[in-house]
Amino acid sequence: MSRHISEQYDLELGGIRDQLMEMGGLVEQQVKDACLAYFTHDLSLAEDVRVNEKRLNRMELRLDDQCVGIIARRQPAAGDLRNIVGVMKAITDLERIGDEANRIAKMSIQIASMEIPTHQYGDLRSMHDKVNIMLTETLDAFARVNEDVAQQVIRSDDDVDEIYDAIVAQCTRQMQKDTANIPHLLSTIWVARSLERIGDHAKNMAEYVIFQVLGKDVRHPTSAKT
Amino acid sequence: MSRHISEQYDLELGGIRDQLMEMGGLVEQQVKDACLAYFTHDLSLAEDVRVNEKRLNRMELRLDDQCVGIIARRQPAAGDLRNIVGVMKAITDLERIGDEANRIAKMSIQIASMEIPTHQYGDLRSMHDKVNIMLTETLDAFARVNEDVAQQVIRSDDDVDEIYDAIVAQCTRQMQKDTANIPHLLSTIWVARSLERIGDHAKNMAEYVIFQVLGKDVRHPTSAKT
Repeated sequence: MSRHISEQYDLELGGIRDQLMEMGGLVEQQVKDACLAYFTHDLSLAEDVRVNEKRLNRMELRLDDQCVGIIARRQPAAGDLRNIVGVMKAITDLERIGDEANRIAKMSIQIASMEIPTHQYGDLRSMHDKVNIMLTETLDAFARVNEDVAQQVIRSDDDVDEIYDAIVAQCTRQMQKDTANIPHLLSTIWVARSLERIGDHAKNMAEYVIFQVLGKDVRHPTSAKT
Repeated sequence: MSRHISEQYDLELGGIRDQLMEMGGLVEQQVKDACLAYFTHDLSLAEDVRVNEKRLNRMELRLDDQCVGIIARRQPAAGDLRNIVGVMKAITDLERIGDEANRIAKMSIQIASMEIPTHQYGDLRSMHDKVNIMLTETLDAFARVNEDVAQQVIRSDDDVDEIYDAIVAQCTRQMQKDTANIPHLLSTIWVARSLERIGDHAKNMAEYVIFQVLGKDVRHPTSAKT
């Protein structure tokens, strides 16, 4: 690639990365708002999340299109191509995190008229805090192509899975004692499940960062060995 | 592209599509086996699914790698590039269907020692049948790049979502009457949820087929209009 073409290419890729970060920012906000709507039984905040979901979908389509366009026009070499493929995969994960936020918003609408329980969703709140940090960190790792932060995100996912298992076990026990609250408890399990999936997607994105840095695929480490 | 290069390219892309179909065949089998293990409380079949999951993960990594390789080497024009991007996205969906099969297998292991209920998982079985057909059809649509079959898959997803809602409502009512069975009923909801997700992934794949045929993105049709 001549210097001129290469500069043009960097400029275009930079533009795509900026938009990816903008999409990431909106996704972060959606997760926070959806969970806050759930914790505080705030119907109107939940409706806002449902509306913003449409913006996210438009961002996904536009970004995907731009990525295909840049590959077709610029025909990048292997290293650059690896970057764009990483970005395209991250777009899919961000969109699916948005889907989960939307699911949490739906749950919030279903329980909005119920009383806020005395436990104030304690464990779910700490799960949400941890997933939030993962999401912020993974976007940061992506923006700065920072391997250390990405590794940190991958490690955090185990903690999130542990809290998730504990919440499911606790809600299941509670259902047996308090049958009138089964629908509410079930909604808590669904929200925990969505947060667990969001953690998985954040981890996926962290793995693409490492793929970009090292040129090696860290997905499925155990199966790759067998 | 000269004719020679173009033939080489077609040959490589054909090889990738063959492997995608092979991966699709294994994924189909995994979903069937995982559900059969759940319905019949067959512990050993569930363990087989867990083992095959590792094969699927290896297939995903290899295929992804080949797609990046073909783009870097052959620098395909927009139309061909659209094909490969469709294949790469389909690989991700197939791998995630495999993940859901694995989740169903885990549920089967958890309930293997329980008695098979008198209802024999009736509604869940018909949901499984419908999702199975969607999966077979979407792979067929992909193999033959057939838009009609792809449209059929997209329509079927609504039926699957309806059965899913009915199963969740029914299990929730049942939990309130039969608290001793809550863990078992919860597992049925999880399996239904996984099948619902598998339906979504099949629908995603059908949308990539239409993207390849028409060069238009049919994801998020309502949001694209707004």
